Amino acid sequence: MPPVLKKFDYLVIGGGSGGIASARRAAEFGIKVGLVEEARMGGTCVNVGCVPKKIMFNTAVHAEMIKDHKDYGFDVELKQFTWGRVKAARDSYIKRLNGIYESNLDKSTVDHIHGHAKFTDDGKVEVGGNLYEADKILIATGGHPVIPDTPGAEHGITSDGFFDLEDLPKRVVVVGAGYIAVELAGIFGSLGAKTSILIRYDQVLRNFDGMISQAVTDNLEHGGVEVCRRTQISKVTKEGDGTLTLELNNGQISKVDCLLWAVGRRPNTASLNLEKQGIQMDKAGHIIVDEYQNTNAKNIFALGDVCGKALLTPVAIAAGRRLAHRLFDNKPDLKLDYSNIATVVFSHPPVGTVGLTEEEAKAKYGADKIKIYNSTFTPMYYAVTSRKEKCSMKLICALPEEKVVGLHMIGQAVDEILQGFAVAIKMGATKAQFDETVAIHPTSGEELVTLR
Amino acid sequence: MPPVLKKFDYLVIGGGSGGIASARRAAEFGIKVGLVEEARMGGTCVNVGCVPKKIMFNTAVHAEMIKDHKDYGFDVELKQFTWGRVKAARDSYIKRLNGIYESNLDKSTVDHIHGHAKFTDDGKVEVGGNLYEADKILIATGGHPVIPDTPGAEHGITSDGFFDLEDLPKRVVVVGAGYIAVELAGIFGSLGAKTSILIRYDQVLRNFDGMISQAVTDNLEHGGVEVCRRTQISKVTKEGDGTLTLELNNGQISKVDCLLWAVGRRPNTASLNLEKQGIQMDKAGHIIVDEYQNTNAKNIFALGDVCGKALLTPVAIAAGRRLAHRLFDNKPDLKLDYSNIATVVFSHPPVGTVGLTEEEAKAKYGADKIKIYNSTFTPMYYAVTSRKEKCSMKLICALPEEKVVGLHMIGQAVDEILQGFAVAIKMGATKAQFDETVAIHPTSGEELVTLR
Repeated sequence: MPPVLKKFDYLVIGGGSGGIASARRAAEFGIKVGLVEEARMGGTCVNVGCVPKKIMFNTAVHAEMIKDHKDYGFDVELKQFTWGRVKAARDSYIKRLNGIYESNLDKSTVDHIHGHAKFTDDGKVEVGGNLYEADKILIATGGHPVIPDTPGAEHGITSDGFFDLEDLPKRVVVVGAGYIAVELAGIFGSLGAKTSILIRYDQVLRNFDGMISQAVTDNLEHGGVEVCRRTQISKVTKEGDGTLTLELNNGQISKVDCLLWAVGRRPNTASLNLEKQGIQMDKAGHIIVDEYQNTNAKNIFALGDVCGKALLTPVAIAAGRRLAHRLFDNKPDLKLDYSNIATVVFSHPPVGTVGLTEEEAKAKYGADKIKIYNSTFTPMYYAVTSRKEKCSMKLICALPEEKVVGLHMIGQAVDEILQGFAVAIKMGATKAQFDETVAIHPTSGEELVTLR
Repeated sequence: MPPVLKKFDYLVIGGGSGGIASARRAAEFGIKVGLVEEARMGGTCVNVGCVPKKIMFNTAVHAEMIKDHKDYGFDVELKQFTWGRVKAARDSYIKRLNGIYESNLDKSTVDHIHGHAKFTDDGKVEVGGNLYEADKILIATGGHPVIPDTPGAEHGITSDGFFDLEDLPKRVVVVGAGYIAVELAGIFGSLGAKTSILIRYDQVLRNFDGMISQAVTDNLEHGGVEVCRRTQISKVTKEGDGTLTLELNNGQISKVDCLLWAVGRRPNTASLNLEKQGIQMDKAGHIIVDEYQNTNAKNIFALGDVCGKALLTPVAIAAGRRLAHRLFDNKPDLKLDYSNIATVVFSHPPVGTVGLTEEEAKAKYGADKIKIYNSTFTPMYYAVTSRKEKCSMKLICALPEEKVVGLHMIGQAVDEILQGFAVAIKMGATKAQFDETVAIHPTSGEELVTLR
C-alpha cells in the first residue's frame, strides 16, 4: 500500500450535481475539500440527463412550431432535419459546461482527483493507486440506467446511448413507462421517427396523478407515438441488415433501428467496497440514509441518486449544500425537506406536478375532506392553429381551510409556470390565497388563480 | 320622455372585461341584471387589446423561432409572410369570443341592451330612446387611445387601428414609451418592418424598475428597432404617394407607411352625462372612486380603465366580481387589494414585474434597509443558437427578514413564470422561503429560488 497522499476535511466521491454543489459550498467555509470523479464533470444531469435532454426537447418544440408556421402566416418549406447538427452543437455546449464545472471547482479551491474511488478496508479512499484520508466523506456517485436480462437485450441502448446517436433512427421502440421513456419517445416521435412505446400496463407515468397519467398517454398517441399496452419483450434478435426483431408477449416488431430501454436506474455502489465500511444498503444497492444524509457509518454521508429517493438534480444540489452548512458552517439542524418537491416532465406538452396526487390526498385526508378544482382549456397560442393541444390543471385542497396539497398540470408552458406555485404551496398556500392574487392576462398561469 | 322600459337590481354600463365579470357574478345571486354595450362584447381586451395583441406577439415569436431553426438542425426556407392570413384567423377567433361572451351573458340571464348609455338628468339610464332604472349602477365604460393635437396627427393610427391593418407596413413609426408602444414596435420589428420608436426621454417603460427600462430599450435596438430618443413630432404631412413625412424636433422621417400613436389613453366618460349626477372626475375625466369602487354618488359605482388606475383586464375582472359579492352576496367588506398586482409586458423577450421597483423600495424602506438579488443568464434554449437573448431577474427584499417586496424580470418565459411568484409575494414570502423551495431543472424559473 502506498502511503496516504493527502488528507482532506471533506472528501466528496462523485462529481455530479450533488457532489459538486456540496464540495463547493463546503469550501466556502475555509476547509480543505477534495472531489473524486472518474468521468466528465457534471454527472448524469449535465452529460446524459437534464441538459442534453432539454436541448432535444427544444429541438422537438421547433418541429412542432414548424407545423404551425402556416397558420401564423408563414409559408415555409422544411427541406431537411439534420440530427447531427444539433447533436454537435449540444456536445460542444456540454463540453463547455464540463469546463465551467472544472474551473468552478478550481475557483472554489476544491482539489479535483481524477479516477475511480474505492474504499480501502480500513476506511481510506483509494484512487488510481493513491490513498486519501478525510474527516468526513460524502458518497454522491449517482446511478446508471439498467439493461434488463432479456435475451438479446444488449442490442438495445439506454438513455446514455440516446445521447450518442448520430442520426435520428427511422424505427424506434422505447421500453418503459417512466418519465425518461415518455420524454425520449416524445422527442423521437416529434422529430418524425416511427416510434412505439412498450408499457407493462395501460398508462405511462403510473405514479403520477391519474389525470396526468391519462393525458400524457393520450398525448403520446395523439402525437403519433404507438402506445403498446401490456407489452413486454421476450427476445431481441439482431438481423443481417443490422435491424432488430423484437419478440413480444403479444406479437412481434421487426426492422427496429433503435431499441431503447428506459426500465429503471441503479445506484453506482457496486465497486466502492462499501460492505467493508459496514454501510447499509437496500436490496437494489441504494445507500440508506437518515433525513440528515447520514449513513449508518460515522462521518460517511450520502445523497443524490445513489440513495434512490427523489432522483432529481436540484434535490441533490439542495441536499448537498445543506449538508455542507450542517457539517462545516455550524448549522447542526439544517436538512432538506423532501416534501412538496416540484417536478417537471418534458413531455409534449410538458407536465408539472407538486404535492400529493388525488389518490394520495384521499388516502391521507379522506375523500370527503378534500376539494378538487379542475380546468381544461386550449391555450391562446392555439387560437389560430389547426394543431391543438389542451392544457389541464388540477388543484387538490384539504378541507376545511382549502390548503393546497397538490397541483398537477399538463400543457404548454407549465414547465415554467410551476416554480412560483411551488414556493406558494411550500409556504402553505390556501385556495383563498391563490384567489386573492390578481391574474396576469393573457397567460396560461392565470388559470390557477381563477379556478372555481 | 318614454316611460321606463325596465327596472333592474343592477345595471352595468359597459360590456368589457370588468362589466361582464361583475354582471355575471351578480346574476348568480338571483337578482335582475342588465348590461349595456354599444359595440362588440368584450371591450378593449378582447377586441383591440390583450387578446389580438397576444396573437400578434405569438406571430412575432414564430418569426424569431424561424431564425433559430437552422441552429436546431432544421433547414427551412421562408418563402413569404402573409399578415392577412393571421389577421383573418385572429378576427374570426375574436368573433367567436364575442359570441361566447354574448351567450355567457344569456346563460347567466343577464339582459343585454345594445346601444349607447347615457344618464338622464334624473338618474335614469337612456339607451336608444328607451329608459332604464336600477337600484345600483356600475360604470365600466373603459377608455380609448389618444391622438394628440399635433398638426396632421389624424394621419396616424392608434392601437385600435393596429388591429385593422390588412398588411404589414414596410416603414413604421411608433410614438410613445409605454408598454403599448413597446409591444407594438416589437411586433412590427420582429416581423420585418423597418421600425422606429420615438420617445421623449432616453428609455422606454420609465415607470418600471430601471433594470427593466434599460433592458427593454436595449432589446428593442438589439432586435432592429430604431430608438429615437428625446424625439417628438411637430408636424405630420401626407404626401402624394400616400406616405407620411414626419417633422421632428431633431430632424425628419419620410416615406412612413404607418404612424402609430401610443401616447396614452383617456376614459370613456365624455358622453355619459355624469356631471348632472354630480359624479366626481379628475381632470382627465377618470371617475374618482374609493377602495370599494364607490363613486361619490350613492348607488353608482365604477371600475376598470374608466377609473384610470391599474389599467389591466384582470384588475377590472377582480374588482367587478368583488363588487358583485359586496353588493349582492352580503360580503360588505370585500374589495380588491390594489397592491402587488403583477403585470407582464409582451416585449421581445417579455417582461414580468410585481411589487416595488428598486427606487420605490429605497424610498419606502431606506437604501440600507433593502437587499437586492440579481441574476443575468442565457436561458438554455440559446445554448445551441447564434441568436442569444439574456434573461435578467431582480429580487428586492426588505430587511431584516428579507421580505420580498419587488420582483422584476425580463427574458424568455417570464410571462408564465410570474403568476405563481405573485401568489407567494402576495402571501408575504421571504427570501428564505424562496430558497427553501427545491428548484425545477432545467428551467428559467428555478433561478429565482437559487439567487445569492
